[in-house]
Amino acid sequence: MAGSIFGRQFCVSTWGESHGKGIGVVIDGCPAGLSLCEADIQSYLDRRRPGQSRYSTPRKEADQVEILSGVFEGRTTGTPISLLVANTSQRSGDYREIASYYRPGHADYTFDKKYGFRDYRGGGRSSGRETIGRVAAGAVAAKILGELGIAFQTYTRSIGPVCIDYERFSWEEANRNPLYMPDAQAAFHAQEYLQQCMQEQNSAGGVIECVISRVPAGLGDPCFEKLEANLAKALLSIGAVKGFEIGDGFLAARSTGAENNDAFYMDEKGRVQKASNHGGGTLGGISDGSPLVFRAAVKPTPSISREQQTVTREGEAVKVQVKGRHDPIIVPRAVVVVEAMAALVLVDALFSGMTARMEYLGKIWGSGIPEK
Amino acid sequence: MAGSIFGRQFCVSTWGESHGKGIGVVIDGCPAGLSLCEADIQSYLDRRRPGQSRYSTPRKEADQVEILSGVFEGRTTGTPISLLVANTSQRSGDYREIASYYRPGHADYTFDKKYGFRDYRGGGRSSGRETIGRVAAGAVAAKILGELGIAFQTYTRSIGPVCIDYERFSWEEANRNPLYMPDAQAAFHAQEYLQQCMQEQNSAGGVIECVISRVPAGLGDPCFEKLEANLAKALLSIGAVKGFEIGDGFLAARSTGAENNDAFYMDEKGRVQKASNHGGGTLGGISDGSPLVFRAAVKPTPSISREQQTVTREGEAVKVQVKGRHDPIIVPRAVVVVEAMAALVLVDALFSGMTARMEYLGKIWGSGIPEK
Amino acid sequence: MAGSIFGRQFCVSTWGESHGKGIGVVIDGCPAGLSLCEADIQSYLDRRRPGQSRYSTPRKEADQVEILSGVFEGRTTGTPISLLVANTSQRSGDYREIASYYRPGHADYTFDKKYGFRDYRGGGRSSGRETIGRVAAGAVAAKILGELGIAFQTYTRSIGPVCIDYERFSWEEANRNPLYMPDAQAAFHAQEYLQQCMQEQNSAGGVIECVISRVPAGLGDPCFEKLEANLAKALLSIGAVKGFEIGDGFLAARSTGAENNDAFYMDEKGRVQKASNHGGGTLGGISDGSPLVFRAAVKPTPSISREQQTVTREGEAVKVQVKGRHDPIIVPRAVVVVEAMAALVLVDALFSGMTARMEYLGKIWGSGIPEK
Amino acid sequence: MAGSIFGRQFCVSTWGESHGKGIGVVIDGCPAGLSLCEADIQSYLDRRRPGQSRYSTPRKEADQVEILSGVFEGRTTGTPISLLVANTSQRSGDYREIASYYRPGHADYTFDKKYGFRDYRGGGRSSGRETIGRVAAGAVAAKILGELGIAFQTYTRSIGPVCIDYERFSWEEANRNPLYMPDAQAAFHAQEYLQQCMQEQNSAGGVIECVISRVPAGLGDPCFEKLEANLAKALLSIGAVKGFEIGDGFLAARSTGAENNDAFYMDEKGRVQKASNHGGGTLGGISDGSPLVFRAAVKPTPSISREQQTVTREGEAVKVQVKGRHDPIIVPRAVVVVEAMAALVLVDALFSGMTARMEYLGKIWGSGIPEK
Repeated sequence: MAGSIFGRQFCVSTWGESHGKGIGVVIDGCPAGLSLCEADIQSYLDRRRPGQSRYSTPRKEADQVEILSGVFEGRTTGTPISLLVANTSQRSGDYREIASYYRPGHADYTFDKKYGFRDYRGGGRSSGRETIGRVAAGAVAAKILGELGIAFQTYTRSIGPVCIDYERFSWEEANRNPLYMPDAQAAFHAQEYLQQCMQEQNSAGGVIECVISRVPAGLGDPCFEKLEANLAKALLSIGAVKGFEIGDGFLAARSTGAENNDAFYMDEKGRVQKASNHGGGTLGGISDGSPLVFRAAVKPTPSISREQQTVTREGEAVKVQVKGRHDPIIVPRAVVVVEAMAALVLVDALFSGMTARMEYLGKIWGSGIPEK
Repeated sequence: MAGSIFGRQFCVSTWGESHGKGIGVVIDGCPAGLSLCEADIQSYLDRRRPGQSRYSTPRKEADQVEILSGVFEGRTTGTPISLLVANTSQRSGDYREIASYYRPGHADYTFDKKYGFRDYRGGGRSSGRETIGRVAAGAVAAKILGELGIAFQTYTRSIGPVCIDYERFSWEEANRNPLYMPDAQAAFHAQEYLQQCMQEQNSAGGVIECVISRVPAGLGDPCFEKLEANLAKALLSIGAVKGFEIGDGFLAARSTGAENNDAFYMDEKGRVQKASNHGGGTLGGISDGSPLVFRAAVKPTPSISREQQTVTREGEAVKVQVKGRHDPIIVPRAVVVVEAMAALVLVDALFSGMTARMEYLGKIWGSGIPEK
Repeated sequence: MAGSIFGRQFCVSTWGESHGKGIGVVIDGCPAGLSLCEADIQSYLDRRRPGQSRYSTPRKEADQVEILSGVFEGRTTGTPISLLVANTSQRSGDYREIASYYRPGHADYTFDKKYGFRDYRGGGRSSGRETIGRVAAGAVAAKILGELGIAFQTYTRSIGPVCIDYERFSWEEANRNPLYMPDAQAAFHAQEYLQQCMQEQNSAGGVIECVISRVPAGLGDPCFEKLEANLAKALLSIGAVKGFEIGDGFLAARSTGAENNDAFYMDEKGRVQKASNHGGGTLGGISDGSPLVFRAAVKPTPSISREQQTVTREGEAVKVQVKGRHDPIIVPRAVVVVEAMAALVLVDALFSGMTARMEYLGKIWGSGIPEK
Repeated sequence: MAGSIFGRQFCVSTWGESHGKGIGVVIDGCPAGLSLCEADIQSYLDRRRPGQSRYSTPRKEADQVEILSGVFEGRTTGTPISLLVANTSQRSGDYREIASYYRPGHADYTFDKKYGFRDYRGGGRSSGRETIGRVAAGAVAAKILGELGIAFQTYTRSIGPVCIDYERFSWEEANRNPLYMPDAQAAFHAQEYLQQCMQEQNSAGGVIECVISRVPAGLGDPCFEKLEANLAKALLSIGAVKGFEIGDGFLAARSTGAENNDAFYMDEKGRVQKASNHGGGTLGGISDGSPLVFRAAVKPTPSISREQQTVTREGEAVKVQVKGRHDPIIVPRAVVVVEAMAALVLVDALFSGMTARMEYLGKIWGSGIPEK
């Protein structure tokens, strides 16, 4: 069953395994006339590239993207955009041992149960490298959104027990430290915590937060295609994400209606505004013009060199230490993945919303109809 | 844009407004040969029916379901199943006033922004009555799952600050108290808390938990169609749900790899098992044979009779008190909605998984092919 | 597997059997603000209603449509539109015998092979009454298209060996005779032919032609979603349709490039026009601004009272005469079904085309984005 | 809007322009465990490769396929299969002139109307090279079908006025002559006809026929997803195809019920059979166990070197001769494209049919469910 296609109108179809020939994505449904070049996409890919700090794997991966189709003379043509990142840094030897047993916290066992066997090299399709296709497609989506003025801030909200303090929030700082934390003090403590984890041959998780501003009101649908429903799916589809919340999220469940309701008022320019944003930017599944604010909970990296208990494919109990070049934390590298997935959802909602009203049809087709 | 269709192979298409002629759903993709009658569906609908306790609206809604198609001589025929629940208890007069202003925490404003106007009677399509179609379809999905031995336990985990204690967990108790809490002591304290909210013209939220046991390993897909991704979308598509987590969820983000990884072992019957279930029943988006455990955070009912600040459609600031017959908490009635949505996701995953291996094709089609 | 949902953005989900409680359709994706009432739909349904001439079944079917949702104060709200036609004229007794054997030319045998059993009353889901849902939804689609100036002429091109002569084409005549033939002389000869068929306990087929004018250039997609591909699927999905062609169709296969190519020229108003329309209104799957011209071949009614050879469910050879109230020809009643299906395709193409260019996004969302 | 994705469960996403870096396809939904190598696919691609006779373009295109993902140790893994054919023989200079005017019978004009501009090199996305992705994916689909015993015969039925005589039908002959005609005498006359066309700087069309045998009864759905509906869409989605018919097709429209109905009988092995196959292998949209027989009408190649009348992008009338290396007929090279598209439809119908009955669920999942 097809499971690697995302989106209804801006459809992305990703492919590729960790140790195959490459990773890629086909984008079907990008409007014609968008200015696009490889650098637009590369800047996104570079944000997830490993080897940039001591908290990510020392593997060197160039991850250079190539546009194979759909762009002509610097602009998208409206036809499918095929993007390719060749694999260049596979050391399959590292992984041969894991063919024989099931790594705890990994998909080895479930792939065997579903498919009968698996491409065990580097995790195959369940490798973190699978996200390359998402990020490449998300870069194109983000470029479309940018043209409409929609802007993203995605960052690390917490690592293990260390959470940012919003009083110290600094967007510049988020791009300065290797953890993408917008609070220098929290970033410092988080690094201390990570070093301790590494010393103990352990790993850490964290929470990623995404704030999208200048989103038009009216995006999303009232029922199954609620904006937050698609965001939740998009984020939970990222490996290692175990939770999603929008606005006050789980805290809202402990709040009361009087506290949690966001009052409306008119601003000085005569626009309806909300006095607070407990809802996180949607009401009834539809954007309300406030910033979208949502979070993803990321579990600790399952690959740890500490000894663990597991079984072989044949069912024999074994003790294992997962070798290879692994990140002690994947949160910083997953920040751009969260942003990419959110961009895909938002573009799709924008496209879907273009048929919400009869009057919109006339704006596009009114002049296209030949005279009698 | 279509937003009221859910599912890829077991597709449900819901329709209906709070104060229209009825609410319904069409199920397309139900296999032939399932024994099905109206009572199978009615028992699910009765679980969400209001008027059963002092914590739900005193409206009397019979909510009798009628099967209009797709069932012949007590069995499904494989063709679309149309289910109808006629609306019988609308008092539109209660709602006329809300046509003029935007209720805080409701979708009035966003419907106007999206569609230009709205059916304001009882919330129209964004009413809680919209869930009737989900529950009716979910009852059919649950019946299919039941035939395969898959079983659900869905209940209220917390209301406001009151959480169940798993040491006192009792499934019988969950069906005994009006809050569907599987802990009598928590249910008692939660009711005290709700009475206080009602006295203060306020409302409460809570967390719903769903545990699905006897799920085959191998359901779900490695990439965008991860089992937890579809569960997250399904639950976030329910009005008032603001968060989703599977397994340890947001707690996992504070844990370490050594704690969070679930070790594998062989049980006495030679089956692979997990020593713990921090993951909540999936690895890499695919079920691992452990129970699925996930939660939804539900915000407090936005309709409160306490005075609130808002604006009219014309932009005038007004103070409002939302009248009508509203639940001080929607969590207990939403329990069955969560279960229904989860059942829809699981049936779809089961169906999708039937083409995961070449050998499965032969099991169905091997004998159907005419000889040369 | 779901098979009763049609359309990508304007999605219709039909349901209902010949002898069940009713027939209906849910339309998901209709823009808000379309003026719509039951009479708009009824006028389409009346065109397929039987009992209007001696060439259609003498069954009396009121086929009154009821709008159950999605319309408020005379306008569509953007939420699903549920349409219901109650069944009122079933005489199940007529059909009981056919439960035991397989009618030649009908789906009795294939339903049994697919589903294991069937609702045999009146053909169940494979009855001609299944088209009621299509026509009701098509009426809504046609209303949308009408607002944009797009106009349909659908008529009977031939019955058995009798074809219209385009020199005598008269649109008024098409609505005057019971066969919907736009040529009085051909209609006269076709009626003679049909009377002969009826005397011989036989039935006839024919060809339906549809011409859609004032279609904007630019609808349809270059690859799998070619406009003619979706029209072909739509028409072949109608029971008894065995062929489809656009423009010169099968004749084009015998033509040459020099004859078949349509030359371009500029008209006096400076618009690009085609000197001929061998292509039938598309080039490369995309509308070119010329009228869309396409045809469906309809097989003779399989239900004939003449004796036929077949087998019972148990495999015994039997001779049967199909009783019941059947049309000697279904072409005239299928004319509106063809038009309805074409309207569904065209609305979907219009909606899809709204994201073809970046500049279109700005036309809808440019002003919706809040200022910084 | 996405238009380059085909299939519901066996989904193929094609991409690539005539003169871009390559052409490719991603297959999502192929079951795990299919033996697959590049030679399996190459043999299909070779059937559409140009330069094999005087009736196809003298361009030399190697069209070597490369498997980039989804296959491990010779078997499919269940994850997306990415296939790439690099472009190697582009002479863009040939095409620069056509940037300025609209070629009759081509999609130049409609691309401009839809997208605002176009990749004019070699027809861009509307080039015949677009079919490479279809054929590569179809080869994988055909391999799956072959494992179930389903077999294809696809051939040229007619070229211009020359039609095969079924009395002389020879499947060996179809693979012997360059026109894929299964009748040596017709192939001889067709070649005479083509030489005359070439002398007159003209081109020809024809009809392709496909016969699929050993198809299980029960494939396809009763309503919109009729097997013939999906075949019609698949074939009409191929550039230059203008018509589709199944079984007797347009001839059925002139027939009578008594002639056209296929009688049932029991064969000597106790199986239900049809005495004739006017229907072409389906009843009510569902396969009946007889061979599927259907045809596509292909228009004459629009690129002819004879002088034609057209207009420039600026609207000036011009006379043009289309230069470049073009086929005088595309029918022989389109034979494998028709087969590939039909294979995609059939695999999807097989997959969809696996959930038609409750008993099928047990065959797959019965043993997968863990004991209580």
